[in-house]
Amino acid sequence: MKKIGIVGGTGYTGVELMRLLARHGGVEIAAITSRGEAGTPVSELYPNLRGALDIGFTTPDEADLAACDLVFFATPNGIAMNQAPNLLAQGVKVIDLAADYRIKDLSVWSQWYGLTHASPDWVERAVYGMPELYRDEIRGAQLVANPGCHVTAVTLGLLPLMGQAWIDHTRLIADSKSGTSGAGRKAEVPMLMAESGESFKAYAVNGHRHQPETVQTLTAVATRAVGLTFVPHLVPMVRGIEASLYVPLTAEPPMDIQRLFEDYYADERFVDVMPQGSHPETRSVRGNNLCRMAVFRPQGGDMLVISSVIDNLVKGAAGQAVQNMNLMLGFPENQGLDLIALSP
Amino acid sequence: MKKIGIVGGTGYTGVELMRLLARHGGVEIAAITSRGEAGTPVSELYPNLRGALDIGFTTPDEADLAACDLVFFATPNGIAMNQAPNLLAQGVKVIDLAADYRIKDLSVWSQWYGLTHASPDWVERAVYGMPELYRDEIRGAQLVANPGCHVTAVTLGLLPLMGQAWIDHTRLIADSKSGTSGAGRKAEVPMLMAESGESFKAYAVNGHRHQPETVQTLTAVATRAVGLTFVPHLVPMVRGIEASLYVPLTAEPPMDIQRLFEDYYADERFVDVMPQGSHPETRSVRGNNLCRMAVFRPQGGDMLVISSVIDNLVKGAAGQAVQNMNLMLGFPENQGLDLIALSP
Amino acid sequence: MKKIGIVGGTGYTGVELMRLLARHGGVEIAAITSRGEAGTPVSELYPNLRGALDIGFTTPDEADLAACDLVFFATPNGIAMNQAPNLLAQGVKVIDLAADYRIKDLSVWSQWYGLTHASPDWVERAVYGMPELYRDEIRGAQLVANPGCHVTAVTLGLLPLMGQAWIDHTRLIADSKSGTSGAGRKAEVPMLMAESGESFKAYAVNGHRHQPETVQTLTAVATRAVGLTFVPHLVPMVRGIEASLYVPLTAEPPMDIQRLFEDYYADERFVDVMPQGSHPETRSVRGNNLCRMAVFRPQGGDMLVISSVIDNLVKGAAGQAVQNMNLMLGFPENQGLDLIALSP
Amino acid sequence: MKKIGIVGGTGYTGVELMRLLARHGGVEIAAITSRGEAGTPVSELYPNLRGALDIGFTTPDEADLAACDLVFFATPNGIAMNQAPNLLAQGVKVIDLAADYRIKDLSVWSQWYGLTHASPDWVERAVYGMPELYRDEIRGAQLVANPGCHVTAVTLGLLPLMGQAWIDHTRLIADSKSGTSGAGRKAEVPMLMAESGESFKAYAVNGHRHQPETVQTLTAVATRAVGLTFVPHLVPMVRGIEASLYVPLTAEPPMDIQRLFEDYYADERFVDVMPQGSHPETRSVRGNNLCRMAVFRPQGGDMLVISSVIDNLVKGAAGQAVQNMNLMLGFPENQGLDLIALSP
Repeated sequence: MKKIGIVGGTGYTGVELMRLLARHGGVEIAAITSRGEAGTPVSELYPNLRGALDIGFTTPDEADLAACDLVFFATPNGIAMNQAPNLLAQGVKVIDLAADYRIKDLSVWSQWYGLTHASPDWVERAVYGMPELYRDEIRGAQLVANPGCHVTAVTLGLLPLMGQAWIDHTRLIADSKSGTSGAGRKAEVPMLMAESGESFKAYAVNGHRHQPETVQTLTAVATRAVGLTFVPHLVPMVRGIEASLYVPLTAEPPMDIQRLFEDYYADERFVDVMPQGSHPETRSVRGNNLCRMAVFRPQGGDMLVISSVIDNLVKGAAGQAVQNMNLMLGFPENQGLDLIALSP
Repeated sequence: MKKIGIVGGTGYTGVELMRLLARHGGVEIAAITSRGEAGTPVSELYPNLRGALDIGFTTPDEADLAACDLVFFATPNGIAMNQAPNLLAQGVKVIDLAADYRIKDLSVWSQWYGLTHASPDWVERAVYGMPELYRDEIRGAQLVANPGCHVTAVTLGLLPLMGQAWIDHTRLIADSKSGTSGAGRKAEVPMLMAESGESFKAYAVNGHRHQPETVQTLTAVATRAVGLTFVPHLVPMVRGIEASLYVPLTAEPPMDIQRLFEDYYADERFVDVMPQGSHPETRSVRGNNLCRMAVFRPQGGDMLVISSVIDNLVKGAAGQAVQNMNLMLGFPENQGLDLIALSP
Repeated sequence: MKKIGIVGGTGYTGVELMRLLARHGGVEIAAITSRGEAGTPVSELYPNLRGALDIGFTTPDEADLAACDLVFFATPNGIAMNQAPNLLAQGVKVIDLAADYRIKDLSVWSQWYGLTHASPDWVERAVYGMPELYRDEIRGAQLVANPGCHVTAVTLGLLPLMGQAWIDHTRLIADSKSGTSGAGRKAEVPMLMAESGESFKAYAVNGHRHQPETVQTLTAVATRAVGLTFVPHLVPMVRGIEASLYVPLTAEPPMDIQRLFEDYYADERFVDVMPQGSHPETRSVRGNNLCRMAVFRPQGGDMLVISSVIDNLVKGAAGQAVQNMNLMLGFPENQGLDLIALSP
Repeated sequence: MKKIGIVGGTGYTGVELMRLLARHGGVEIAAITSRGEAGTPVSELYPNLRGALDIGFTTPDEADLAACDLVFFATPNGIAMNQAPNLLAQGVKVIDLAADYRIKDLSVWSQWYGLTHASPDWVERAVYGMPELYRDEIRGAQLVANPGCHVTAVTLGLLPLMGQAWIDHTRLIADSKSGTSGAGRKAEVPMLMAESGESFKAYAVNGHRHQPETVQTLTAVATRAVGLTFVPHLVPMVRGIEASLYVPLTAEPPMDIQRLFEDYYADERFVDVMPQGSHPETRSVRGNNLCRMAVFRPQGGDMLVISSVIDNLVKGAAGQAVQNMNLMLGFPENQGLDLIALSP
């Protein structure tokens, strides 16, 4: 049994990590920290865990995190960059579910996150935790930066097209829609049900942190400049992200697009290219770690459309983190993650 | 008091017409027809009308529609083209809320609707019922084709840019999202709450009837070829449409875009260009006839984004129809339509 | 035009008051106060009011509330009891939408609200603002205590039975369900959409402030001891209350129960006793001031069931307050309140 | 590996059975029948099963159900009573998720279901599939009648009190609320999202089939006459039932009620008596087989209140059926059922 620590376990990624790890079979949760909730059983804050996980929150000081094999940071941005290096120095493996280690260009990171980075050397050494791209590096990594939720849906949907000579890499569009759990468990007026229920809107149209993160990966894969317009929206539901991706064609593709996608992801357990004409629903991945997608070329025109869905708390956060943990600790990649989506 | 008839009043556009007309002040509903519900008081089918409208459904045969000043067709596609000409011939004014008279090119219409048109001459004479474009023609029209719901949100959001030399008219994208009432009051499995609740998806990505309708109008205004990718989505809510519109810039616009939009709609009572940086919510127009929009140029780049919201049953259907009726019958354009949106 | 002030207009009852008053026709909103939002146009906080109400929030000090004919307190509990007396002393009429003046027994009030009352003399003089019971007193009142939301649905549903010899007044049960807007526009974790969406629960089962308020009125009408078990629930929707009321029969009623209810409310504009066998839906009163109800005697047994629905923000708050205002200022009771419910 | 058949697998109980059985580990699904969908892969109808279950629907005739160890009937009422006896005669074990074998009194059954029973002898031999009451009988049963969804939440919440001398068995009240998936996957207007979304109502107040089913069990346990008023409600969500149960006290209970409940269910894996003062949420059991409940005595008065929650498709249908299957086939009772609820 590997020993696992969770720092900042009171949010939605925290409870989702616990849901997945409690039934993983190869790990035990040694410590979950929260200054505010220290002493509280996790099942009091999250009754869905009653009977499944008999552990309480502890202060970071009491938790012997250095004795863990791997520690998840499910903290707000700016925490892991201060606290992770100490654990890393003691040989503990770390997965940060926040954004501290996602962006390699420190000036870009500072611009979007409004902070000076506290451990820039670890930014360089961190591996971006998207197994479909960096599986081998993740296996050997000591520090993994778990991707953002919108980022995951958008990046996976665009990857097979990156670098193709017949698309316009400078005019990509990602129209992404997320359930409200993506905003986390923070008391904020706009996230009240009375504010976000039975309504729909775009937000952060002028700029969202997931845009530079996505562009970084797409650029690396395409090996050329990428222009991406990214517009997030808030859906009156709890879980799920659907990203509609628009890719202009500049020439006739020399192959079948459906086939291109199927081949690209043929060996990926957690990416499902659906049959031609399918319309992926977010509920088809509710609670599980899959990204399902479908690719379209409406009326045979010069625009490709990809619809890509994930559960923002699973493949978009805790599930992908467990997938990374499996790789880092030598478990089968799908251990603990083969849950079937809850539908209806 | 003008006498109004409604053919096919059992659907959502029917009940919404009744909600608006019952408090209009200048009209009386002389007849509401429904073969299936003949004899039933409308307030039995729609309890929200109890105490507000004391009338029952009648068969089309019993209803003396020819005695009406104006008749709304709130019927499925393919009905008005057969039944309206007889009324028109008797001098009755008609507003068709379905698609029978929206598309001027009969071959395009037949291709998308799968029918041969029964009254092609009236297609030619029909005025497209978008007051912001065709106010004067509507005033004098005998037959008005009320625009589609997605179409209204998309077209109004793009109009100020049509014909501008500095946008790429061939790569327009409309990512539109609608509440489930847009599908009408028909017993269909995909529209069950257990199917469409707490989930989100795109639909009809390969082609939707609102695409050619939108293109027809945009082309006429732009006076050049328009390429539009239109992708509708289903939102787990009842009412509202948000369309995110993407317009590539080909050169630096010679004017302030915000100002362009504000000037374009300065005299329009039912279009609200919101202040820079606003994010229109569908609930801000719930139950009223406004289209609210905001225009963005993310990071000063080469893509404009417009977010446009309407209530699909009001500005997207019954409200716009009443606006057209007001024009056709000589009422103030906003009579009966100055309701404030219900929020929260 | 009567001059109206609103103290604490940033919450949901505030915006709902503005929605109704902006189209009332007989009043003008002279001032809306909010310390936190002073200087902000109300339409910035509530975009649904854009174009309908051109006014901004002011500090209580700047607002010349004493020059108003009537002032609404849409403040948290404990504010009006301190601030209203000064206005009342200057002859201003006051309607308190909070609970400061609802409960006559000061010790009961203190027990439930945890405060010592600051203006006990005004508690005595205040009229309980339920027009169906106290219409004449409200007409002459200077201070009206607007009833609670659950209270309104429960009380109106039980009134016709109070004092009847053939019911058990000691075992009344009110199982009430409210949308989340009932909790107000406060940033609280349990009211996040991610917490209250797609879920259902009871709350405050061991005791809720609306229980003593309801009992006070029922006791007064029944002129005997009343025992009421009141259990509120949170519904994953924004607006609406449904109360299912259970009344044990102790003897065969000597009259038709349906008829009893219809007669009781025959002259009430805002209470709708629906036909036998109807099941009132909250959406049938969405946005309007009606209480609709139906009465049942399942299988002819010894338990009556009443299902009573209101919009918690209208008849349960702002709408009933405007109804009271109409009475106090001599307007027709339904002025500004004849809106038709939004359905679907 | 035991061979399992599912008759009528296209509904929500069907897909939920598949979700649970596909990860059970001790069974294989040999056949799923559907006349309408024969030839269709189940993953086409239910994309959440893509990659998890590679099987298609077959006609009942093609399916060799007699070769199965156990067959689930997930069919509408009135099917199993005709088709199950043939399988039973060949030694196949059967679990009926419909109501054909739930009610022992054939005249009561006929009155509520409007049918004459086709296999009354099997009604007598059927065991009612509530493991908390009839575990041993289920182990030896050939035919099990799986309880109704509301029935399960209500019965489990009342069981510990049945037969107690200090409650009034004749005035029990169950105010039960269900998500819309309880109505099944049938195309019906009232279950459209546009009809049931953002609204709340009671239904079938004058009589619902789950009332006599509940009374039958409670009477048997209490060994005295039971009077139950049962009122179901429709919640604007997909999954979940909360039942608020009201039990009048006739004398001071001689024991601690909380303790009584905890002791009663001490050995039950799928019933969770929550700590005093808890308010069970339906999401705390979403997707899992638990019934969580809390018991209250508001203000120390003479009415007990129990709030009991289940997932209507799991403990209220497919999950309880798998629990029964485990007992009938000799698996550990919780095999395949230890999933953690999805929350948020």
